[in-house]
Amino acid sequence: MKSPDVFATRSWTTRRERKKRRLLRLAGYRDGRVIQKANMIAAMEELLEPGDRVCLEGNNQKQADFLSRMLAEVNPARIHSLHLLISVLSRPEHLDLFERKVANRVDFSFSGPQAVRLAEMVSDGRIQIGAIHTYLELFGRYFVDLTPDVSFIAADSADSAGNLYTGANTEETPVIAEATAFRDGLVVAQVNEISKSIPRVDIPGSWVDLIVVADRPYAIEPLFTRDPALITDVQILMAMLVIRGIYEKHSVRTLNHGIGFDTAAIELLLPTYGESLGLRGKICTHWVLNPHPTLIPAIESGWIESVHCFGSEVGMERYVAERPDIFFTGSDDSLRSNRAFSQVAGLYAADLFIGSTLQMDGQANSSTAIAGRIAGFGGAPNMGSDPHGRRHPTPAWLEMTSETGDQTRGRKLVVQLVQTFRDGMQPTFVETLDAVAVGRRPS
Amino acid sequence: MKSPDVFATRSWTTRRERKKRRLLRLAGYRDGRVIQKANMIAAMEELLEPGDRVCLEGNNQKQADFLSRMLAEVNPARIHSLHLLISVLSRPEHLDLFERKVANRVDFSFSGPQAVRLAEMVSDGRIQIGAIHTYLELFGRYFVDLTPDVSFIAADSADSAGNLYTGANTEETPVIAEATAFRDGLVVAQVNEISKSIPRVDIPGSWVDLIVVADRPYAIEPLFTRDPALITDVQILMAMLVIRGIYEKHSVRTLNHGIGFDTAAIELLLPTYGESLGLRGKICTHWVLNPHPTLIPAIESGWIESVHCFGSEVGMERYVAERPDIFFTGSDDSLRSNRAFSQVAGLYAADLFIGSTLQMDGQANSSTAIAGRIAGFGGAPNMGSDPHGRRHPTPAWLEMTSETGDQTRGRKLVVQLVQTFRDGMQPTFVETLDAVAVGRRPS
Repeated sequence: MKSPDVFATRSWTTRRERKKRRLLRLAGYRDGRVIQKANMIAAMEELLEPGDRVCLEGNNQKQADFLSRMLAEVNPARIHSLHLLISVLSRPEHLDLFERKVANRVDFSFSGPQAVRLAEMVSDGRIQIGAIHTYLELFGRYFVDLTPDVSFIAADSADSAGNLYTGANTEETPVIAEATAFRDGLVVAQVNEISKSIPRVDIPGSWVDLIVVADRPYAIEPLFTRDPALITDVQILMAMLVIRGIYEKHSVRTLNHGIGFDTAAIELLLPTYGESLGLRGKICTHWVLNPHPTLIPAIESGWIESVHCFGSEVGMERYVAERPDIFFTGSDDSLRSNRAFSQVAGLYAADLFIGSTLQMDGQANSSTAIAGRIAGFGGAPNMGSDPHGRRHPTPAWLEMTSETGDQTRGRKLVVQLVQTFRDGMQPTFVETLDAVAVGRRPS
Repeated sequence: MKSPDVFATRSWTTRRERKKRRLLRLAGYRDGRVIQKANMIAAMEELLEPGDRVCLEGNNQKQADFLSRMLAEVNPARIHSLHLLISVLSRPEHLDLFERKVANRVDFSFSGPQAVRLAEMVSDGRIQIGAIHTYLELFGRYFVDLTPDVSFIAADSADSAGNLYTGANTEETPVIAEATAFRDGLVVAQVNEISKSIPRVDIPGSWVDLIVVADRPYAIEPLFTRDPALITDVQILMAMLVIRGIYEKHSVRTLNHGIGFDTAAIELLLPTYGESLGLRGKICTHWVLNPHPTLIPAIESGWIESVHCFGSEVGMERYVAERPDIFFTGSDDSLRSNRAFSQVAGLYAADLFIGSTLQMDGQANSSTAIAGRIAGFGGAPNMGSDPHGRRHPTPAWLEMTSETGDQTRGRKLVVQLVQTFRDGMQPTFVETLDAVAVGRRPS
């Protein structure tokens, strides 16, 4: 079957040929898969091409920071107009890429620490934002219209066959590597060391093209290594209200907590206040959550059956290794986290999402976007949404049915913990979210 | 911190110890990871325990059918009360498991060919249905409250280190293996052969506990190897309406098609009717879809930029291998499909889902459940739902905005192709879906 306007002859292996050319240009810089760190900037100038779609592993925890620091130093006369794909714009050099005109476009999820500088650079026209996504949405696009040409990822170690060990911080490495490797993109991994053998294989060597031993171990951000003594009386009161008024009332067994003292207070009160209500085994048994230290009392007192994690938490490695009944771990005893599957679990398998927010309007719309900051979303709009596709009934989900008639279905519980006034007596409840004006601003 | 009622001493490695005991009991039946096929039934009686949560790889395409046939023959006096987790209850032996009382409970997604027998066995009380899920929902629960104790999976080949090659039919093997292996479950793979080396690694050997060479290659169901000449004039007319009235009108570039002649007609008309409208490059560029043969004319005439696949399609292996620019393939030239990630892409990254249905009511609620059949859902309620978490704007998505005011957002296009009357002049449009009565039936 031929249409009037067929492409009579064309190559169907252009991506594969381009990958071969990239690797050929690198011949002088690599020994098999291995590149020396001192050559990395020069190697990047050979392997990249202007306009490439480049995925850089970087989220609110693990960072391919050696590779991002090197990338920020390539010569913009040679490598420019990159389209950056990144979960979290969190490090200064991520924005230096745009300052130096190495990149000019970004698709991302969250930009916590760089939110103010990002807003300025968007105003100045130095960054074009494709879109701000939830993690799962961004990962989904890696298989559709945002497939990476080159990905820069991070792992603990590699063996001589290129197999990667990610230890407790597997996080989003598998989804990035898969989307890139199987569409003839180039996968470049920074590792802390190359070993004769690795404790387990997290990413098969046949998915990895190039490996560099970084100048220092990859950066990792602690999310919740804080002093529980800083939890306030008001937060304890709110936590009691949640346990009694929401978790007990709705029999919430599968859930995802946000990060911070508000939800940490709930975790800490389960073995005392929760126990006094006779709720052990009845609520909070299955979690989608990183290994927060504030979960320890509930785990030790037998409240928790399982925890699946997006990533790990600095300092929790030995505790997790000693509690394989609770966490997903490998035969090497370390956590196997997986950001993509934890987001799927949080979306579809959890009955409740609870978080905190900065502003809320009269219709309970909430936002963390306030004027002059573009922070983005992370996972909240994914896990904090009621997925229409969900079908399995649980008491918590069915309890939330508000429809009547033939078409009733359950609903996910979505809870926001806020106080009436934020720091500086800023009101939490507003007529119109700041986000409305932020969204209208031309970009 | 101690609560009044702590578990003073308990083991935190019960899952790991149980796995060790299972493997110890198998000592006489295995040589390293390898079990001989003649011993498989006896081996299953040693490795399984009554009440186990057992995941059996089986969907509308790939089947771990050697393992399901063997499982159906274990002695129910020893192995009983299994809780089966399976995407699609499609083979007779899947229901024989319940007939013989080896299993008594099932969580699943779809039961096409066995829908009538399933409905009977539920009525008779021989099967308890936990829930009927979408694929992504079921996969999510594997990391929360339905983590498998034992998984039976299928691959093309294994090497001596236990690494698995799945060829074009990777499908759901990775998500099952990950959920099981990293919570000290047992992963058992049937393979077509054991080779000295495999073309690529799809599942690392350190995730796989036991391997058996099956009596014949794993079963694989062709989904769409049919004669396009059977497409009717009405289907061609409907396809033209869709191209002109929906895809052109809304600039639909990223999409998922259902299976069948209705949507095949659309695919076939792109290079002719679509070309005559000047739509090449403007619609239908990025697909989430198996490699349907009816996509070939659109691919050959330059309409399609990429296709990510849930699974493969029998007979399309060589075509896919010759078109790596379009499909996700490995260095061995064969497809890397991935059901979990394709469902994520279909949910979050696609602008349109189009399918067919059996009944529709006045509010456009639709269902394929009719009296006396429990077919389930597959992926449709997932990909055919508007995900609240989605944030990235595309023309197709923004076009669907119906809200006004500050909180406007886009919406996924969900299209059902139906004719007014089905076979036997059964009306498609009904006052009340049969599914309402089916849902009310006590089970």
